[in-house]
Amino acid sequence: MAMARGLLLPLCLCWALSAGATERSGSPNLLVLLMDDMGWGDLGVFGEPSKETPNLDRMASEGMLFPNFYAANPLCSPSRAALLTGRLPIRNGFYTTNAHARNAYTPQEIVGGIPDSERLLPELLKKAGYVNKIIGKWHLGHRPQFHPLKHGFDEWFGSPNCHFGPYDNKAIPNIPVYRDSEMIGRYYEDFKIDLKTGEANLTQIYLQEALNFISRQQASRQPFFLYWAIDATHAPVYASKHFLGTSQRGLYGDAVREIDDSVGKILKHLQTLGISENTFVFFTSDNGAALISAPKQGGSNGRFLCGKQTTFEGGMREPAIAWWPGHIPAGKVSHQLGNVMDLFTTSLSLAGLLPPSDRQIDGIDLLPAILQGKLIDRPIFYYRGNEMMAVRVGLYKAHYWTWSNSWEQFSQGIDFCPGQNISGVTTHTQEEHTKLPLLFHLGRDPGEKYPIRFSSSEYQDVMEKILPVVQLHQDTMVPGAPQLNVCDKAVMEEVIQRRPW
Amino acid sequence: MAMARGLLLPLCLCWALSAGATERSGSPNLLVLLMDDMGWGDLGVFGEPSKETPNLDRMASEGMLFPNFYAANPLCSPSRAALLTGRLPIRNGFYTTNAHARNAYTPQEIVGGIPDSERLLPELLKKAGYVNKIIGKWHLGHRPQFHPLKHGFDEWFGSPNCHFGPYDNKAIPNIPVYRDSEMIGRYYEDFKIDLKTGEANLTQIYLQEALNFISRQQASRQPFFLYWAIDATHAPVYASKHFLGTSQRGLYGDAVREIDDSVGKILKHLQTLGISENTFVFFTSDNGAALISAPKQGGSNGRFLCGKQTTFEGGMREPAIAWWPGHIPAGKVSHQLGNVMDLFTTSLSLAGLLPPSDRQIDGIDLLPAILQGKLIDRPIFYYRGNEMMAVRVGLYKAHYWTWSNSWEQFSQGIDFCPGQNISGVTTHTQEEHTKLPLLFHLGRDPGEKYPIRFSSSEYQDVMEKILPVVQLHQDTMVPGAPQLNVCDKAVMEEVIQRRPW
Repeated sequence: MAMARGLLLPLCLCWALSAGATERSGSPNLLVLLMDDMGWGDLGVFGEPSKETPNLDRMASEGMLFPNFYAANPLCSPSRAALLTGRLPIRNGFYTTNAHARNAYTPQEIVGGIPDSERLLPELLKKAGYVNKIIGKWHLGHRPQFHPLKHGFDEWFGSPNCHFGPYDNKAIPNIPVYRDSEMIGRYYEDFKIDLKTGEANLTQIYLQEALNFISRQQASRQPFFLYWAIDATHAPVYASKHFLGTSQRGLYGDAVREIDDSVGKILKHLQTLGISENTFVFFTSDNGAALISAPKQGGSNGRFLCGKQTTFEGGMREPAIAWWPGHIPAGKVSHQLGNVMDLFTTSLSLAGLLPPSDRQIDGIDLLPAILQGKLIDRPIFYYRGNEMMAVRVGLYKAHYWTWSNSWEQFSQGIDFCPGQNISGVTTHTQEEHTKLPLLFHLGRDPGEKYPIRFSSSEYQDVMEKILPVVQLHQDTMVPGAPQLNVCDKAVMEEVIQRRPW
Repeated sequence: MAMARGLLLPLCLCWALSAGATERSGSPNLLVLLMDDMGWGDLGVFGEPSKETPNLDRMASEGMLFPNFYAANPLCSPSRAALLTGRLPIRNGFYTTNAHARNAYTPQEIVGGIPDSERLLPELLKKAGYVNKIIGKWHLGHRPQFHPLKHGFDEWFGSPNCHFGPYDNKAIPNIPVYRDSEMIGRYYEDFKIDLKTGEANLTQIYLQEALNFISRQQASRQPFFLYWAIDATHAPVYASKHFLGTSQRGLYGDAVREIDDSVGKILKHLQTLGISENTFVFFTSDNGAALISAPKQGGSNGRFLCGKQTTFEGGMREPAIAWWPGHIPAGKVSHQLGNVMDLFTTSLSLAGLLPPSDRQIDGIDLLPAILQGKLIDRPIFYYRGNEMMAVRVGLYKAHYWTWSNSWEQFSQGIDFCPGQNISGVTTHTQEEHTKLPLLFHLGRDPGEKYPIRFSSSEYQDVMEKILPVVQLHQDTMVPGAPQLNVCDKAVMEEVIQRRPW
């Protein structure tokens, strides 16, 4: 009984739509606010004790909060590739096959990137007349063939990679910044980041880019898709002078406050232009907070276990808010299991388009959850590289593999789960549990501390439901060609781990 | 610079009072909603992922949230004695001197209780014409001289102790339940608690008692002080049939949902009777969630370290909401450092009374914080029994002693910090740091994971401010006669630790 409730989620609060809420004239603008390494617990509305995000908290009170929303991967590049393709990284190629269960991304040294065969959201939205812009971090490959303007975006202001550096090795120069097809400068050289004080104006620049684009699109009366992929909360974290030293949380909190302020200004801009009721806005993050960089350069995953790079909840559960005045009822909470990949399918649905039918799409259309309060039954798969580490079905999560980080890293002081140690769960070797998965109830035990006893009837009943879900997933999986394979020069774990912040 | 900001808290958001907000006709009713073992993280507004407390969350959105509010002790009896006397347990006698840094409470076996020399809040409120009622758990001694009606309360419905049991030893019979001076039955015998299903109607009974009392007082036009000290979230946790099985969180969540529903009904009742603008309501808890009972019988302390019985944040940081429509501006957050002892002084202030001048009072008047948005500079002291373990000044917390629980207990599977292990912090022996306290910045590091380096200038600067605060506190401390000393028959740690839930 408890099992059945847990699998289906107990509180299905549906509501009838008023006629007004269903009427939509044309395709709404789409605005995805994607944060970098921001954790579930970084927002006041998700329990950050400093309560320093009044604009995001208001966005939630005017929109819909998703406490069960996930990244597609615990690392940036694969998660972003999944968001824009609607497909798991193992399908779209954003993984490695030559190191088991290793996360991989697109540092300067890697030659791979988003394959031409993948169909990205902006590419598809063009068919419905959308103008597409990316502001901020691309991260789907830096060679010419991977440029965002070759994959459906009409405009770009930002960079292909993280704002690491400054590099003094001319073989690995500072990361470039682009306007559309042209490189217009480099981080540290033309776009200043002061690593000592943490001062940088980048969020203000990204904000102004967003406001200008929105104004232009409103004037031209063309629908737009704006992918605002800013990166102030990724180490090295930064904030502009006005925000430096204003947070209880130190520099990381300053960055969050500036982002919160910027989101407030963007939403206000939509309202001032009179297009808020015609603009669907979604706020989320690419992966969990990087606890390896905490406390000065990393955020909070609330009470969830571990952080970025892991498939525990702290690595993949994300803050998420949908906002669309006049359509989404204010102040609702949806316990729908969501994923950044759903933004692909949901955006297409809003644009009146169907996802491609010639390939497996993992993202679902969230509109029934958002507009009608429905709960759609769907699993969440947690991957590290080529390996499905865990699966969530309803309130239950089964770990097929566990791994925090290697003993080698751990002995060097690199810890993905600082201060947390769950015996047999936060393992420093890759532990296989495929025969007898570790099972947790995320309602009673969101922190994944208390595995359900193998001998219990609850375990038996639940695994009977989960096993066929996993079986189907694995039997029908056709992996894409791996783009991020480990080679001598490739950085396979985040560079940040070897840096002092 | 960072230090000064941290010490004073950075965001002093004061606001001017409208004339309407200051006008108060007569003394308002006082309603203290005191939870039992409820943790900071148990409310949606404080980040519980299930978001199952709509009434408490609304109470916060209509009132003022205190994310920095503390219990006076990490255990129930001392914290409650402190709330009602405005004094630290070491002053009012609710501690032990014959076991160092041991928490103690008032089990059936103990002979001590609240001394006659202490002046309790209801006793003082009588002078201003208040009618005082306690509903629920007293916990300040069970011998006749300690009866609440001998200490200022006019009415009582509830019990002197926890709802432990059932006991099969006739020498320790089931806990009695009183109506005023008369014992009217016992838990398990007359007031059912089904330990197998977790079903009990007690919260409904306590709710009805509250509604009736409020109605009667409104009719008689006498100001009241109602101390609603319910205990459904203390193990063995319980809920009535209507709420059983309704929470994502299991039985503990069912209990929280019933409490949330009850608080909603009480606030609604005040509004229906037209006295909400004349009733000051404060919601909080007696100590942190009992992680030893988690996940099925214990709550959540959010991202804070450890739980009940410890002087880490999880043991003493409490959920706290003030509500007083027409007086408290809606939806505000106060970063005032507060303590349950402040409810003593604040209540007296609201009644137009001054606290006793013949003794040290630790509680402060929170009205400047609540009505004018001021931040009052005051330290928080964290005691275990006779020992000051830690102190908080601004955003900094210095541990003078650390201790989670003993190796002996730990080796038996009793763990006050399950899944958490901070080397040198969550120590299983009593570790003295009085010469060189462990210092944490609770803004950057609410989880007390990253001690500030002793050699840093931040450490030096901050400790220069903290040392005189502690010196003054300890130099002027006159401990009261200990009431809870360990003797053969006394249970010095919670009975719950030896129970299976």
